[in-house]
Amino acid sequence: MNISLDEICSFLKTRNNFYILTHQYPDGDTLGSANALCRALQKTGKNARVLCSDKIPKKYSILSRGIKKQEFEADYIISVDVADTQLLGENLLKYSDKIDLCIDHHESNKAFAKMQYIEGSSAATAEIIYELINLLGVKIDKQIAVCIYTGITTDTGGFKYANATPRSYRISADMLEKGIDACSINRIMFDTKSRSRLEIERQVLDTMEFFYESRCAVIHVTREMIKKAKANESDIEGLASIPRQVEGVLVGVTLREQKDGVFKVSVRTEEDISAAAICENFGGGGHQGAAGCNLPYDLDVAKKKIVDAVGFAFKGK
Amino acid sequence: MNISLDEICSFLKTRNNFYILTHQYPDGDTLGSANALCRALQKTGKNARVLCSDKIPKKYSILSRGIKKQEFEADYIISVDVADTQLLGENLLKYSDKIDLCIDHHESNKAFAKMQYIEGSSAATAEIIYELINLLGVKIDKQIAVCIYTGITTDTGGFKYANATPRSYRISADMLEKGIDACSINRIMFDTKSRSRLEIERQVLDTMEFFYESRCAVIHVTREMIKKAKANESDIEGLASIPRQVEGVLVGVTLREQKDGVFKVSVRTEEDISAAAICENFGGGGHQGAAGCNLPYDLDVAKKKIVDAVGFAFKGK
Repeated sequence: MNISLDEICSFLKTRNNFYILTHQYPDGDTLGSANALCRALQKTGKNARVLCSDKIPKKYSILSRGIKKQEFEADYIISVDVADTQLLGENLLKYSDKIDLCIDHHESNKAFAKMQYIEGSSAATAEIIYELINLLGVKIDKQIAVCIYTGITTDTGGFKYANATPRSYRISADMLEKGIDACSINRIMFDTKSRSRLEIERQVLDTMEFFYESRCAVIHVTREMIKKAKANESDIEGLASIPRQVEGVLVGVTLREQKDGVFKVSVRTEEDISAAAICENFGGGGHQGAAGCNLPYDLDVAKKKIVDAVGFAFKGK
Repeated sequence: MNISLDEICSFLKTRNNFYILTHQYPDGDTLGSANALCRALQKTGKNARVLCSDKIPKKYSILSRGIKKQEFEADYIISVDVADTQLLGENLLKYSDKIDLCIDHHESNKAFAKMQYIEGSSAATAEIIYELINLLGVKIDKQIAVCIYTGITTDTGGFKYANATPRSYRISADMLEKGIDACSINRIMFDTKSRSRLEIERQVLDTMEFFYESRCAVIHVTREMIKKAKANESDIEGLASIPRQVEGVLVGVTLREQKDGVFKVSVRTEEDISAAAICENFGGGGHQGAAGCNLPYDLDVAKKKIVDAVGFAFKGK
C-alpha cells in the first residue's frame, strides 16, 4: 500500500521499537538514510536500531556517530533505499516478508512492504528522509546533517550525475548550515582508494590501447591482474569509466575476465555512437551511452571482435 | 577604490564598450565569469568582448556559445577573477595600468584597478557575477547559467573543496532550473584527461613507495618522465594529491624534478601531522595539511631526507 509522508509521520509517532534495514553492500545513501532516521527516532524517545547484512566499511563510520546502541526486540521493521528484498543480503533475508514500511527512491522498487513510500524523482533516499524528519518536527542536528549530506553526495557522485536536482543542492545547502564539514565528507567518500584499487588501476592503465585515430580506447582486466592486486568487487567498480575519460575518445571499451573465462565487455560512448547497437552484435544490450555483452573467447579474439564492431559503428559517421 | 555592487551596476549601465579581461592559464571561473558578464552586457545592448592572453582550452568552448563577436575599441576595461596584473599574462599586460573595474574573490587581490569589488567569502567570482547580473536586471538565460555553474563547480572542485558555501549550492540550484545539463558540464570539466595526463599518471603510480607501515606514501616525477609523456604544466597539476588518497596514508609526499635538477617537494598530511613542520626542516613551509620545500639533491638523497623527516614527525604520535 502506498502511503504519504504525513501518514508515515503518524505511523512513526504512534509506534515504537523500530529496526531499520539497509541494503547489502551498503553505500552512503542507505546508511546515511538509516542512521539519520534512527537518530531522529531516538531523539523523540523511541527505540531504533540500524541493521545491515554486511560489515560496514570503515569510511561510513562517520554516519553512526552519536547513535545510541539500544538492545530491544523489534515491533516494526522499516527498510530504506532497498529496492527488492533480495538486496537485503543473507543476514537480513529473514525479514523479507515482515517489512512494515519501505522508504525508497528507486522507481524499480518491488513494492514488497506492507506500506511504502517510493519517490523516484529523488536523487537519494536521504532527500526523502530529510523531508520526513522535518515533518516529524525533529530538529536536524549536525550529525543528522552529516548523514543526509552523505546520502545525497554519494548517490549523485558528488553532484556529478544527471540525477542531482535543484532540491539535492538546496537540501545540501541547508545541511552545510548545520555546521557539517562537507569537504572532509567528500574526501572520505570519494578521494580515498584502497591499495588494491590503486594497484588494479595501475595495471589497467598499462593495458590501454587506442584504435581508429584514438577515437576508441580499450582496457582489460584479467583474473590474474585482480589476484595480483588482491582486489575485491568494490576495488574493481567503475573501472569501465576510465577509457572514455581520455580526451578525444568517443568509445571506451573494458574487457573483464569472468570466472568461466568469458570476457564481460562494457562499452561507453559519447555523442551519436550507440553503445547498445555495438553490444547487440553479440547478444548484449543496454543504453545509447552505456551497454554490455559477453564474449566467450580468449582475450585477443574477444578484443578483436569488439574493436571490429566499434569500427563498424564509426563507419558512415 | 572599493565600490559596491550597486555602484558597479550604475557604472555599467551608464557606459559602453567594455573589454573583459581574464587571467592567464584560464580556468572555468575566470572564463565563466567573463562570458556571463559579457553576455549580460550584450543583452542590454552594450558592446562587450572577453580577452584572454592564452589560447582557450577546447573544453571551455561551451562558455562562449552565443556570445556575439563584436569589433570595437574599448572605452572601459574590466578584469574578472584576476588577483594581480602579473596574472593577466603576456598579451594583456599592456592593460595593467588601465583597468577601470576589478571584480574578484581572491582576498589576496592587489587592488590594482581604479575601482574594485573583492568578496573573499565567495567560492567563485561567478557567484559575484550572478549577483551583479541580477542587480543589472538581466534575465539569466540558459547560456549565462552554464557560465555561472561552470565557474562555481570548477572553483569548488565539484563542490568538494572547503570553500563551497550554502550560497554556492543555492546559486547552482537556481542555475539547474535554467535548464543546464550540469552532468555534462561536470564531465567535461572533471572527467576528461589528456593522453599525456593519463601517461604521466600511469608512470607516477609506478613510482609509488610506502614507508612506516604504509602511513607514508611517496611518488616522484622526473623531467624525463614528463618528456616521455609529452606533458605540459596542466597535465601535471594535482599529482601531489595522489599519494594521500591511498587508504591509511597519513602523509603523502611528491617529489618533482625542476629544470635545475632541484626537487620540489609537496607534502600533504592528515589528522595531527603538520606538513608545514616537516617542510620547515628544509627551509620550506605552508599549512598544517599542505606544505612544500625544495631539496637540491639527486632523487635518492632527496627522497631519503624527506622520508626521514616524515619519520621524525611520526615519532611520539
